[in-house]
Amino acid sequence: MRVPVGPAPRFNHGRSAGQFQGLLPSPKTTTRRGVSILTPRTTHRPAISRGCSSLHPRCRLSAPFQIRLAATDTTGAAAEAAVKRGRLWPLVYRGLAFTGFFFLSASSVLAAIFIYDATTYREAPTFEDISLSEYALHPRRGGPKNLPIAEHLVDDDESPEMKAQKHKPKLVILGTGWASVALLKQLNPDDYHVTVVSPSNYFLFTPMLPSATVGTLELRSLVEPVRRIVTRVKGHFIKAMAEDVEFSEKLVEISAVGPGGEKEHFYLPYDKLVIATGSVTNPHGVSGLEHCHFLKDISDARLIRNTVIRNLETACLPTTSDEERRRLLSFVICGGGPTGVEFAAELYDMLNEDLCRIFPKILRCEISVHVIQSRGHILNTYDEALSRYAEQRFAHEAVEVLTNSRVKEVLSDRILFTQKNEAGEIVIKELPMGFCLWSTGVSQTEFCKRIAVKLEPQKNRHALETDTHLRLIGAPLGDVYALGDCSTVQNNVSDHIVTFLRTLAWEKGKNPEDMEISYSDWRNVAKRVKTRFPQAADHLRRLDRLFERYDADQSGTLDFGELHALLRQIDSKLTSLPATAQRAHQQGQYLGRKLNKMAQAAPGMRLNQLDYGDIDEAVYKAFEYHHLGNLAYVGNAAVFDINGMGLKGGLLAVYLWRSVYFAQSVSLRTRILLAMDWTKRAFFGRDLMNF
Amino acid sequence: MRVPVGPAPRFNHGRSAGQFQGLLPSPKTTTRRGVSILTPRTTHRPAISRGCSSLHPRCRLSAPFQIRLAATDTTGAAAEAAVKRGRLWPLVYRGLAFTGFFFLSASSVLAAIFIYDATTYREAPTFEDISLSEYALHPRRGGPKNLPIAEHLVDDDESPEMKAQKHKPKLVILGTGWASVALLKQLNPDDYHVTVVSPSNYFLFTPMLPSATVGTLELRSLVEPVRRIVTRVKGHFIKAMAEDVEFSEKLVEISAVGPGGEKEHFYLPYDKLVIATGSVTNPHGVSGLEHCHFLKDISDARLIRNTVIRNLETACLPTTSDEERRRLLSFVICGGGPTGVEFAAELYDMLNEDLCRIFPKILRCEISVHVIQSRGHILNTYDEALSRYAEQRFAHEAVEVLTNSRVKEVLSDRILFTQKNEAGEIVIKELPMGFCLWSTGVSQTEFCKRIAVKLEPQKNRHALETDTHLRLIGAPLGDVYALGDCSTVQNNVSDHIVTFLRTLAWEKGKNPEDMEISYSDWRNVAKRVKTRFPQAADHLRRLDRLFERYDADQSGTLDFGELHALLRQIDSKLTSLPATAQRAHQQGQYLGRKLNKMAQAAPGMRLNQLDYGDIDEAVYKAFEYHHLGNLAYVGNAAVFDINGMGLKGGLLAVYLWRSVYFAQSVSLRTRILLAMDWTKRAFFGRDLMNF
Repeated sequence: MRVPVGPAPRFNHGRSAGQFQGLLPSPKTTTRRGVSILTPRTTHRPAISRGCSSLHPRCRLSAPFQIRLAATDTTGAAAEAAVKRGRLWPLVYRGLAFTGFFFLSASSVLAAIFIYDATTYREAPTFEDISLSEYALHPRRGGPKNLPIAEHLVDDDESPEMKAQKHKPKLVILGTGWASVALLKQLNPDDYHVTVVSPSNYFLFTPMLPSATVGTLELRSLVEPVRRIVTRVKGHFIKAMAEDVEFSEKLVEISAVGPGGEKEHFYLPYDKLVIATGSVTNPHGVSGLEHCHFLKDISDARLIRNTVIRNLETACLPTTSDEERRRLLSFVICGGGPTGVEFAAELYDMLNEDLCRIFPKILRCEISVHVIQSRGHILNTYDEALSRYAEQRFAHEAVEVLTNSRVKEVLSDRILFTQKNEAGEIVIKELPMGFCLWSTGVSQTEFCKRIAVKLEPQKNRHALETDTHLRLIGAPLGDVYALGDCSTVQNNVSDHIVTFLRTLAWEKGKNPEDMEISYSDWRNVAKRVKTRFPQAADHLRRLDRLFERYDADQSGTLDFGELHALLRQIDSKLTSLPATAQRAHQQGQYLGRKLNKMAQAAPGMRLNQLDYGDIDEAVYKAFEYHHLGNLAYVGNAAVFDINGMGLKGGLLAVYLWRSVYFAQSVSLRTRILLAMDWTKRAFFGRDLMNF
Repeated sequence: MRVPVGPAPRFNHGRSAGQFQGLLPSPKTTTRRGVSILTPRTTHRPAISRGCSSLHPRCRLSAPFQIRLAATDTTGAAAEAAVKRGRLWPLVYRGLAFTGFFFLSASSVLAAIFIYDATTYREAPTFEDISLSEYALHPRRGGPKNLPIAEHLVDDDESPEMKAQKHKPKLVILGTGWASVALLKQLNPDDYHVTVVSPSNYFLFTPMLPSATVGTLELRSLVEPVRRIVTRVKGHFIKAMAEDVEFSEKLVEISAVGPGGEKEHFYLPYDKLVIATGSVTNPHGVSGLEHCHFLKDISDARLIRNTVIRNLETACLPTTSDEERRRLLSFVICGGGPTGVEFAAELYDMLNEDLCRIFPKILRCEISVHVIQSRGHILNTYDEALSRYAEQRFAHEAVEVLTNSRVKEVLSDRILFTQKNEAGEIVIKELPMGFCLWSTGVSQTEFCKRIAVKLEPQKNRHALETDTHLRLIGAPLGDVYALGDCSTVQNNVSDHIVTFLRTLAWEKGKNPEDMEISYSDWRNVAKRVKTRFPQAADHLRRLDRLFERYDADQSGTLDFGELHALLRQIDSKLTSLPATAQRAHQQGQYLGRKLNKMAQAAPGMRLNQLDYGDIDEAVYKAFEYHHLGNLAYVGNAAVFDINGMGLKGGLLAVYLWRSVYFAQSVSLRTRILLAMDWTKRAFFGRDLMNF
């Protein structure tokens, strides 16, 4: 080894290691030299210093001694290194011990995973004898259409636990969205014979669906098998569509694709029916939607991902002209609601972060993203500051926002829309497009329309109306509930109270028109309103003021007309609940709790021979919606609208946005997959492949 | 706190803690009691004992003292606990320190991931000016069909690095399978202007494809974007199909789906063309394959997964009869090769491990899996012991193996096949089926057939013939190579040598029929054979014996006829290479190395004005295939056939099988995804959803 020769150190006896070091040409070289020379003498040092702390007296004593020794060698640096080593060794030793421990722990975890993994393989198939009801194999026919009635299911008798459920009240749940899954997670396992019917055998975590369209998240991270959720309540799942309900015979008509590929219809009997079938995309009467993509289901996300990448690939072809390339790379989003905005944001992220790494750079120059919004702002249901912030972000990211614009027609290669200009004139514009997403809100499913027609009191064209106990209006009381997007809660405070007062007056033999309502009567009425319509409570805070204001004749009492006017004014203030995952989730939880309470109350009621009437009201309060806020991702930034309090920001807000959804995610499985996906994106980017 | 009263300890002065403990009613209770009583006195103990080892003299001294103290309290147990604590504290302290360290390290890793993650988001789009050749936008037309010729690509001028590649020799690679990717990974980045053409923009890790059909692995874990691989060599990718090759004008005809959805044809010029387009499923002339699934591409795996789960769901419907259910759950696999066997194994794993958790148990009882194999054994290319082991496993798992059977026709609900029974008679049988996989080997693509017809010397109906330098026979020498499944290496030793000798004789003015070949001549000929046909080396080990055996007239020399007979016998021993990923990978690597060598040699050759002739042979040896072995997964067990040495076993073999593929996987990304998928399966099972 070549030893570099530096200036010889002098006066080094009394100096500390630190001072001493300063005299040498380079502390780094010195240390290295000293160590290499002294190596044979200090090899036993670790054994001595092992176990003693860094302040051990022996270590401190031996250090000056070694410095003198080293000085006589004229390699003073070595002594200094030895001092360092004397102090360093315990630290090094500890560091090594900790590192060793870390690797040991890590490998233990790995080993544990392997050992656990080894226990999860099933070797031999276990063929048990399964008992099966004859009725399950050959269901009897009946009902108005003489269809098979599935009273017994194939897994009703397969185990003692399932058998125990068999004669419990039959709870049929239509749909596997937010409402149904919240209900299923809330329900006690042993109270009902649960059957879930839906065309999709998974629950989809809809709020993050836009992230799956460009590969930020994987499709399977957003879905959870419904059968796994149903298993908890020992329930059954049938992959089929609800077609109709026979309310008088308590039968749901169901259709499924049979083994031969043809549609087969049958009836499913129920004691309690929960309709939570969601909604479909609203076409708004626009033609040419066959050229559009939608974003309602997980398969939509897959189709979008494939189309986006197909367009990128086609744009690279040598035969694609410049004009065609620009058209292919023109992404149009119809609808400036949260879905449209988040998709635009995710698309833009992908284009900024991943495209240029592997695709020709020309694509990035010719890409354009357009959002067509019918209102004056995007995210118009949010706080105005937030929607402005989102628009600023989009302007910064060169996403074109076309407000006050309505799509007229979608053609295969362009989109026609009308736009109100600043002068208030409506002009027709044209936008070439290679990809179009249609996300302009929701409308009623065919099934719900069919039911609404059957029930005379159903007047709403957009959703099934329920009372505040979520019971479907018009159906036999307490038989049928409707939750989520397919339903709306009726806020008919005045009608309800007027009917109540009329009944009261009639019972007392009075003419309701002649009734005089005193302040204390009014307080009772208000109490009744608050119980029955929890959403109205906010508007009934100052009872005295309301009483005063509507007591037009200053009589100290309200007559019937005055009360009616007061209640109508409250009605007008109540808005219908938003068609969001949040509302569906709360409704599902509410109904789950109520069904649990009903099951608890059932033995007592049976004793008292009570099996009709307003049992819902007897066992549980009315549904009250608690708005927790809205949030949206707007491209490496997120906005939060929490009860009017706005919060907006960049990356930290994005992490917060993710945390909210991470916490709300349906299972441990989806949570871990989400975390993995986010990490994967960070390290490897989005994988731009289509298949 | 209630202190339980035990028998009072006596004679406890001289006793050790261990003896002392024996007198007490229960050591567990005692310890707990002692600690709770002594707590105030010992709270300062950690501070004293911190840092001293468990053998510290002070600790040892204080212990008996404390025992005496405790004895006067008549709760001797407390003293013993104190001793324990004195010894335990440092351990507890260390344990806590290590645990703290572990959590600290873990959170540091997490924090590091977050910090890294935060750096991966791109805020503002970076619009650069991209230079672009006018020819890239408007390619000139030409060639026999007057199509656009893509001499310039849109990303040829986008950066200085790309510009530097522009005038390098054009290397066009058709296909993105094993051979192409191995070549791309071997190629030096700066030697060629590389263009890859393929209808799929990903590389598929085919050996694990069966695992993706039932959700053991996810689809995206098996694929890697080809553009990412191409980026390393600053290459280009065109998502298109090769249609034809114009060898004389060095143009490949390519077709792609254009922006309007119509097919567009164009030419791509090449200096070197590599054909690695793989193969297609072999229909073997059987009708009704539209009712079958295949397993060649990643989308096939998705379709299979969806169909399997759809069948399971349909089997649960109340309207499905028992007979229909059994048919739906009859899974038939045509072909007992590795793909068929591994699919059957994976399917069975899923049915055993996941089905019964969430589906009605009746399904498990009515499921049947059948493998139809035309040969006498499944895995017939493997060692016989291994194929017997696989059959035993399948018998144990109730997978029916139908050997000596040939499929006659596939109908929508059943499959007709002929089986040779033990008496040698052929009987026609019928099997109802709900799912059929067709995996009976491969055949040539349309593109390869078209090329083979064009080139007169191509005689093989199954694959493109190449020489041992992988050059396509019949094409201009050194222009076109063929690799992987679409090709076969010609083993025409005798033809080659005879031609060589004839040329030699003609040059010397002799009649080749009159030549006499001495032993030393024969050694030279054998050396030439070994160089040119490395695969023949095994059969040329004992040159003297061969010489003796074929020297029929014992003349000490071989005449022309004798030599010809010798070489023909060697030819007959050479088998064609298997159509496996392994062979394709080796061929790709080989060609990559050779192209690198050619690029290195190019400047010298240009100086010597050498640009024709057998340059391949001049720069690099001939291709030699090294068989590393076969392996297959057979359902919680795996078999390995490594050069005739068989290895078979249960779970450990499965882990080994996984390790082999884990190591061979194409990128870090896919490796991490594979590990995640395996872990996910262990903890959450396979998710049985279809979308």
